[in-house]
Amino acid sequence: MKELKDRILRDGQVLDNGILKVDGFVNHQVDAALMDSCGKEFARRFANVGATKVLTAEISGIAPALTTAFHLGLPVVYARKTKPVTMPDQVYLTLAPSHTKGRMVELIVSPEYLTGKEKVLIIDDFLASGATILGLVRLAEAAGAKVVGIGTLIEKAFEGGRDALKYLNLPVESLARIASMDGGKITFQ
Amino acid sequence: MKELKDRILRDGQVLDNGILKVDGFVNHQVDAALMDSCGKEFARRFANVGATKVLTAEISGIAPALTTAFHLGLPVVYARKTKPVTMPDQVYLTLAPSHTKGRMVELIVSPEYLTGKEKVLIIDDFLASGATILGLVRLAEAAGAKVVGIGTLIEKAFEGGRDALKYLNLPVESLARIASMDGGKITFQ
Repeated sequence: MKELKDRILRDGQVLDNGILKVDGFVNHQVDAALMDSCGKEFARRFANVGATKVLTAEISGIAPALTTAFHLGLPVVYARKTKPVTMPDQVYLTLAPSHTKGRMVELIVSPEYLTGKEKVLIIDDFLASGATILGLVRLAEAAGAKVVGIGTLIEKAFEGGRDALKYLNLPVESLARIASMDGGKITFQ
Repeated sequence: MKELKDRILRDGQVLDNGILKVDGFVNHQVDAALMDSCGKEFARRFANVGATKVLTAEISGIAPALTTAFHLGLPVVYARKTKPVTMPDQVYLTLAPSHTKGRMVELIVSPEYLTGKEKVLIIDDFLASGATILGLVRLAEAAGAKVVGIGTLIEKAFEGGRDALKYLNLPVESLARIASMDGGKITFQ
């Protein structure tokens, strides 16, 4: 998606630790119009997968998942990383590594909002190693729901996430696929 | 706003601890269409305050702040509760109590995205005691920015937040003002 790729080239920063910083339009400051465009594009690409619910992980998945859900006319559930007092005692919980936090985090979904009848479209900001996405897949499976598609804004293709998701045999769509960030230079596939 | 009030009456739950659970459409599962309507309504009410940026707190402020920002044609910044590795060492940081977590949490904004030139519209899900909103006000003030308005989806009018914000002399708009939840029965003002 050209609009997102252009923005990454303009405002994305490759940090020393191999992290792509997109805090100016995705992760801390969010470009609402760009997120809407991305949501519209996901809705177009996943128009025919029969999704009944969008699933993402807090925090930075919320913006693209919300706009995707809006354009598909669906609700969105975001997995929590801490269990709020409003959640029932019995929950679906899994662990996933957080790239930006440098530790394992919990992903928690209430059975109230994810049931065995759902067809789940997973949306997140990044596809890197695929670990967070696989955590969301486990939550959906724990609920007996069926995952029907996976969409991410930015794929770091050199981190192997797409291969890790291959066994799922599902459509995986990324709006910007980065082939390399060597020497701080971003090259798209 | 009738659409939101009707939804609160239908799907909101008053818990024993005085918490209004709206996890089915605001806080864990989000009704994307409803959030869009709320954002549109905030944009209408704050059309003339001259805002240049929307400011909110992760996590549950993100959805209404994003849709508000979209309809105002502005970017949105969400204060982080943990400092990601992508953030510079020097940040604006304040503490605010979390009602649903039962402890103090940090609210952190990077100086990269909040400067002295900004006119800030604060949007959040709840106005209860006003403590989170006041935390966001302190962050904006620390940056030298000017707060021009405050909007929340749901105001628990009996918790005194509006009075706590009075000294700011700013427009405060809530889309659903709850006068009482006594005996688990929700009454709007």
